[in-house]
Amino acid sequence: MTIKVAVAGYGVIGQRLADGVALQKDMELIGVADVAPTLAVRALKEKGMPYKLFSATADGKAKLEAAGIPVSGGFEDLVGQVDIVLDSSPGGIGAANKEIYKKLGKKAVFQGGEKNSVADVFFHGYANYEKGLGADFLKLTSCNTTGLIRTVDHLDRAVGIEKVAITIIRRVADPGDYHRGLTNALQVDKAPSHQAEDLMTVMPHVEATGILVHTPVTHGHIITVLATPKKDISIDETIALFKKHPRVRVVSLAEGFLGNASLFRYARDLGNPRGDMYEVALWTDTVVKSGRDIMYAINIPQESVTIPETIDAIRAALKTQPDRESATAATNSYLGLGKWL
Amino acid sequence: MTIKVAVAGYGVIGQRLADGVALQKDMELIGVADVAPTLAVRALKEKGMPYKLFSATADGKAKLEAAGIPVSGGFEDLVGQVDIVLDSSPGGIGAANKEIYKKLGKKAVFQGGEKNSVADVFFHGYANYEKGLGADFLKLTSCNTTGLIRTVDHLDRAVGIEKVAITIIRRVADPGDYHRGLTNALQVDKAPSHQAEDLMTVMPHVEATGILVHTPVTHGHIITVLATPKKDISIDETIALFKKHPRVRVVSLAEGFLGNASLFRYARDLGNPRGDMYEVALWTDTVVKSGRDIMYAINIPQESVTIPETIDAIRAALKTQPDRESATAATNSYLGLGKWL
Amino acid sequence: MTIKVAVAGYGVIGQRLADGVALQKDMELIGVADVAPTLAVRALKEKGMPYKLFSATADGKAKLEAAGIPVSGGFEDLVGQVDIVLDSSPGGIGAANKEIYKKLGKKAVFQGGEKNSVADVFFHGYANYEKGLGADFLKLTSCNTTGLIRTVDHLDRAVGIEKVAITIIRRVADPGDYHRGLTNALQVDKAPSHQAEDLMTVMPHVEATGILVHTPVTHGHIITVLATPKKDISIDETIALFKKHPRVRVVSLAEGFLGNASLFRYARDLGNPRGDMYEVALWTDTVVKSGRDIMYAINIPQESVTIPETIDAIRAALKTQPDRESATAATNSYLGLGKWL
Amino acid sequence: MTIKVAVAGYGVIGQRLADGVALQKDMELIGVADVAPTLAVRALKEKGMPYKLFSATADGKAKLEAAGIPVSGGFEDLVGQVDIVLDSSPGGIGAANKEIYKKLGKKAVFQGGEKNSVADVFFHGYANYEKGLGADFLKLTSCNTTGLIRTVDHLDRAVGIEKVAITIIRRVADPGDYHRGLTNALQVDKAPSHQAEDLMTVMPHVEATGILVHTPVTHGHIITVLATPKKDISIDETIALFKKHPRVRVVSLAEGFLGNASLFRYARDLGNPRGDMYEVALWTDTVVKSGRDIMYAINIPQESVTIPETIDAIRAALKTQPDRESATAATNSYLGLGKWL
Repeated sequence: MTIKVAVAGYGVIGQRLADGVALQKDMELIGVADVAPTLAVRALKEKGMPYKLFSATADGKAKLEAAGIPVSGGFEDLVGQVDIVLDSSPGGIGAANKEIYKKLGKKAVFQGGEKNSVADVFFHGYANYEKGLGADFLKLTSCNTTGLIRTVDHLDRAVGIEKVAITIIRRVADPGDYHRGLTNALQVDKAPSHQAEDLMTVMPHVEATGILVHTPVTHGHIITVLATPKKDISIDETIALFKKHPRVRVVSLAEGFLGNASLFRYARDLGNPRGDMYEVALWTDTVVKSGRDIMYAINIPQESVTIPETIDAIRAALKTQPDRESATAATNSYLGLGKWL
Repeated sequence: MTIKVAVAGYGVIGQRLADGVALQKDMELIGVADVAPTLAVRALKEKGMPYKLFSATADGKAKLEAAGIPVSGGFEDLVGQVDIVLDSSPGGIGAANKEIYKKLGKKAVFQGGEKNSVADVFFHGYANYEKGLGADFLKLTSCNTTGLIRTVDHLDRAVGIEKVAITIIRRVADPGDYHRGLTNALQVDKAPSHQAEDLMTVMPHVEATGILVHTPVTHGHIITVLATPKKDISIDETIALFKKHPRVRVVSLAEGFLGNASLFRYARDLGNPRGDMYEVALWTDTVVKSGRDIMYAINIPQESVTIPETIDAIRAALKTQPDRESATAATNSYLGLGKWL
Repeated sequence: MTIKVAVAGYGVIGQRLADGVALQKDMELIGVADVAPTLAVRALKEKGMPYKLFSATADGKAKLEAAGIPVSGGFEDLVGQVDIVLDSSPGGIGAANKEIYKKLGKKAVFQGGEKNSVADVFFHGYANYEKGLGADFLKLTSCNTTGLIRTVDHLDRAVGIEKVAITIIRRVADPGDYHRGLTNALQVDKAPSHQAEDLMTVMPHVEATGILVHTPVTHGHIITVLATPKKDISIDETIALFKKHPRVRVVSLAEGFLGNASLFRYARDLGNPRGDMYEVALWTDTVVKSGRDIMYAINIPQESVTIPETIDAIRAALKTQPDRESATAATNSYLGLGKWL
Repeated sequence: MTIKVAVAGYGVIGQRLADGVALQKDMELIGVADVAPTLAVRALKEKGMPYKLFSATADGKAKLEAAGIPVSGGFEDLVGQVDIVLDSSPGGIGAANKEIYKKLGKKAVFQGGEKNSVADVFFHGYANYEKGLGADFLKLTSCNTTGLIRTVDHLDRAVGIEKVAITIIRRVADPGDYHRGLTNALQVDKAPSHQAEDLMTVMPHVEATGILVHTPVTHGHIITVLATPKKDISIDETIALFKKHPRVRVVSLAEGFLGNASLFRYARDLGNPRGDMYEVALWTDTVVKSGRDIMYAINIPQESVTIPETIDAIRAALKTQPDRESATAATNSYLGLGKWL
């Protein structure tokens, strides 16, 4: 049976969700919804409408058609046809959309911009897949938290993790953003960062804190993680462990991966659509120890990192796979994750 | 008959030349050459070696193979098999390579980083195609000059251009560059800029001057052009004229194209490989007049803009098309240029 | 007789106006007004309140005092004591304040953020001083226009200028700004730029057009100017001419002035308060000709460039000097302008 | 008795050392030395030569005089007149200069760019003043390490520190730098960072590790510190403790200190020469705990932060004060450090 999926909000995340779902052989993308002829929507049209577009609001149809964009119907027309909606609307809109999903008896997965209360489960494909089984409303962890948990959960299952302290060196805008930005300035956030708190929500047996600093770049966050393991683990063992994770790419300075921008360039040169990368990168050069504590740095490709776990969430909500191993394996296979291993 | 092509130097330009040649139905890419396991070469391997790689230097083979990269032979092995080499080696190396091309009796097209004296013709597909017919050694205009001449030549053929004054707001690095960069600074160059002088070399009947300022961005240069036409032309006529050029995309702020980064985002969303764009963009919002003078601003996607004219140069050198119209039409057709018209 | 002056709005411009007025031996700074304990106001306090602070709004007093800032009274208390107010409030507030100035019978000089209609004269100390003589309400040209007109007016008085075409490479934020910024992007504005139009308002015999592009830097705009003179003037004569202007600093790449950031560093090393520079810089390396047209590039220190012309405006409004020569000479002398000549 | 001091290398650090020494009532700045008419040297001349300039190399004199800079003699002429040299030459030159200091029997303090082996003591005014007493050759900790140790040493003396893990978010260039820079990229360094290792050299009883990431900004590094204390200390106690340190400024987001650029703006508005700040800033908003561990973020003003500890080093080398309390108190008093307390 094919799962019918809609994407609400065809922006930075929504476009990538649509493309990711389209690659799943057991899923069918019925359509996407948006409200205005944004550049993303104009590109959809220039490509010949590979996905049907629905108007997410009553007045959206007129605006879209005025720009020459074909519209296949209204939002409820789209939602009515699917099993589940991936809601990547701007923060707060998802909560409003939820009323429509409830009315039409549909499941939904929300992105990190919504409040936790919008969902029954705060979800991560690797860390708590089973909690999402059969759930009606799930919320994905945010981009940083999703990537961070991949590595902490992986360590935790191997040696047990007691606590983590993180520093998030955050990209302040996406490539092409003109509505936000920072020029020659670092900006400090109130600590602890929500990512540390979110990690504790998903992995309640781990204590976490952290500080976030915004930096004027667009190609990926870098997080440093200090993790206190229960059992001692060497630097080499740590690297070997991370090399087995299909959503973590282990890289080195010697190969030419000097920072977040190298990873973006590499993804472009790989021919990945939009130069995207689903995997986080981890630098072998950054893995150090202090006593038993392990410290390392990872790169978070903010535009695309949550796509795999969001697709895992579809699998959990519709119970297509009974456990994390089989669900993530299916997602990884269709997305080509870990094929470099 | 299929033209056999090699690419020397598989860097930012070389990768795009290889991809562009591979799209030409009347050409065959025999292979590419490089000297070390750069990220571009590593990506080629991870993609399964869609192009054969040759070692551009004697000691390159060992370095490449030590990194697990399959090497198909030495530089002369590659050059010996082809009709023409596209040389996108770092500046100065092309002049050294030329001795090999001469020895083996092969034609070559050099990029803007080489000195003009390396070539018989300083070439632009639209402005002086006929000068390149049958030439052995051609040098492409640099990225800014290539895009600039597209627009000035187009105006010139319509209304005659007496003189131009340009201001180049130059991107200082490509995405992923770590060997050059500028942080919170504009940098002034000695005037007149070489692009103004190069324009006069290719279009000797036009007087040109200009100033170049480097800016800390990576997604495309912006050039403002003040052109003095022989015949008066209105703003609307100017815009209409540019809309007919298959290598110029006419855009507007209202559509959401706010600057160079919007164009990069749009190219990514279009699904263009690497988020590249072969065409320059011209903003309708910037077309203004002062007396008879016309002023406008264009965007130059520095990584990919010279690819079409370089392929035109192959056509000229090998006389596959007798004139600019038929040659550029063939290149445009295979690269999909102007399909938005 | 000493002119009594108030400054309304103690922000980036207001602080510098206050310091500039304090240096004029024939003026007395009675106080400054602001609405909240900003960093600028906190610095004023940490310095020991060299200027008296007044609350610009009714509820400002409580907020200021809650932060431990001494407040000397309300806005009308301040305005009532002075001959003229320099209004550097955020755009739009000046128009509201004007009602108070009229009620109390006081003159005022507004900054470029206000609409032209707020004032009787759109003023520039060098270009139209005489128009401001005795005026009640004057508005200064904006930072870019102020610096631009210095050079165009100077050329115009020497050889006559028919028309100019400008490209403004605009800094997008000031050092320390967190409320605006751009990250890795150039942004295009609707042309013609207001600076070209403003130049024509102040110098109605010159035709002007131009394009403005925002860049992600903080230390000064760079403007390229193409000017068509009535009489031919050589490059050397042009440079010699600019060297005589006390508000223009003629610099070169060879001296180490590579761009806008070099000028900021130099001003810091000079010991100028805040690293400010009142003068625009003009690079000899950028002066080129195309036919009779002269092209050159100047740097605009956006935070401080309007201070001298604003002080000139006080002189005009209160008729302390009868003409531009004597007025600007007084201002220059107290501010140390041209002492490097 | 007045200590006679020379500064070798009148660059970013050297200028500030000279100014700092000039403020010490018990010291006399005899002169500074440099090799070429840099902007710093040109500014010195424009200011009227407040400090005598000596040529640091044999051929420097001609170059300086050709630029109109008055030269008071050669390097040995300067060194011969003083008790101690502050060597802020580019990395590696200090080691060569040391031979001259030894020949002339003079003491010297080197900056962080030299190798540790150049000096007898790796020095920090607060952490190991007594080790420097009477030493001939001292090397200052680098800018990041200097600021970091201020806070760790302060905590250590209060509650004992077992270990620290740091993340350094490093500014990649100084304002005005054109010879280095990064554009839209974060760059990862090989871990552990030298700052963690240097901390262990100066404070051998503390275990330290850390990761450094370069960011494209110019106004100060930000370091996050995770410190494991021996005795538990609350967040409020930690903040209260830091408020007592005269070289640490405790700030908050609510006051308007949003990041490194706010601090630079504030220092400019305070009227500090060059907008410099000797003190590190610590954000109350970032102080968090995880178990007993304390985490916090500090700002390092890279251009000026080492000046106080370098002056402390003069005091140690010449034994003008017997202990850290009296030495740092003298330095702080002359530099105005802690006057905001």
